[in-house]
Amino acid sequence: MAIYQLSISTADQNFTCLDQKLQGCIEKSDLSSGLCTVFIRHTSASLLIQENADPAVRRDLHHWFGRLVKEGDSLYTHTSEGLDDMPGHIKCALTATSVSIPFVEGRLCLGTWQSVYLWEHRYGRQQRQIVVHLGE
Amino acid sequence: MAIYQLSISTADQNFTCLDQKLQGCIEKSDLSSGLCTVFIRHTSASLLIQENADPAVRRDLHHWFGRLVKEGDSLYTHTSEGLDDMPGHIKCALTATSVSIPFVEGRLCLGTWQSVYLWEHRYGRQQRQIVVHLGE
Amino acid sequence: MAIYQLSISTADQNFTCLDQKLQGCIEKSDLSSGLCTVFIRHTSASLLIQENADPAVRRDLHHWFGRLVKEGDSLYTHTSEGLDDMPGHIKCALTATSVSIPFVEGRLCLGTWQSVYLWEHRYGRQQRQIVVHLGE
Repeated sequence: MAIYQLSISTADQNFTCLDQKLQGCIEKSDLSSGLCTVFIRHTSASLLIQENADPAVRRDLHHWFGRLVKEGDSLYTHTSEGLDDMPGHIKCALTATSVSIPFVEGRLCLGTWQSVYLWEHRYGRQQRQIVVHLGE
Repeated sequence: MAIYQLSISTADQNFTCLDQKLQGCIEKSDLSSGLCTVFIRHTSASLLIQENADPAVRRDLHHWFGRLVKEGDSLYTHTSEGLDDMPGHIKCALTATSVSIPFVEGRLCLGTWQSVYLWEHRYGRQQRQIVVHLGE
Repeated sequence: MAIYQLSISTADQNFTCLDQKLQGCIEKSDLSSGLCTVFIRHTSASLLIQENADPAVRRDLHHWFGRLVKEGDSLYTHTSEGLDDMPGHIKCALTATSVSIPFVEGRLCLGTWQSVYLWEHRYGRQQRQIVVHLGE
């Protein structure tokens, strides 16, 4: 068993691919096969496993979720932390805070077109903490 | 490895914070570090990791999801179990039935503002079963 | 620890129950109790734990998600792979790519009304790969 912490700089609702860093954790550990669980310690940034080939997929996801979860919705009462805050909480509820991916012979069992992304839901620069658990 | 069962009383689409009970499971086990997986054995109540500071976040989540997933939608054909039943199934599909959180030196690695909630999607009183797996 | 790969044939946005195959994995392993993690290696098919009693629940889920995530939405720029492709990516983002279920004495701790489904989001015939990790 091994646990690592990653610190990721984000900016303006972008997507950060975590694949290389997760592979790096597996290499640092002495585990060959097992389960990699990724956990993000925030409620306005989340995890997403999605297509890595065409960046238009992530752009469309960004716009679709932005249209579904509107800024400045009159329904919101939690408004003191900015226009992007309550939408960020809702997007986190709709996506994932933890994902688990098996790994075999030192490689994550991601599909050919899959990557693991940190999805930032706030504007501006953020520093995000992720915990990676590797278990047998 | 340790597995525990929690039984939680809920009422009327509320949120129940599970942090203390999950910490209690870790303390009962002889594990210091590892992975805590929470699984809810229902299809009309789900799990949510969200902000614990301002209760308005949970209230806004409740209202936003209630507006997205309407009661009495003419699309529904599964209507025999009440107005809140099919919306509950949809809310479960949109949120989580299992979440996994690493723990280190006996403490869940939740972020400062994160708590784990049981999110009840039905009206009235329910008794909900949760299974907690602690592994290395 | 044991890892298995399942290959599942799907057709036309249907639901395939995985319970029997997951139970089969547990029986093949020499594990009695632990955690079963299911991971799907695709970005246009996902995993869902839902009611298994009334098939109308799955039919309503299919229709509700189809109305929320429209085909041919003018917002999409990723359109080269067909009408069902970008909606499939969005439905995957809204549902789960990995789920974890504890098992005790050789049986998954699913609730009475719960089953694990592969939810196909594309038309036509697909062959889907699932990785099952069983750990203590």
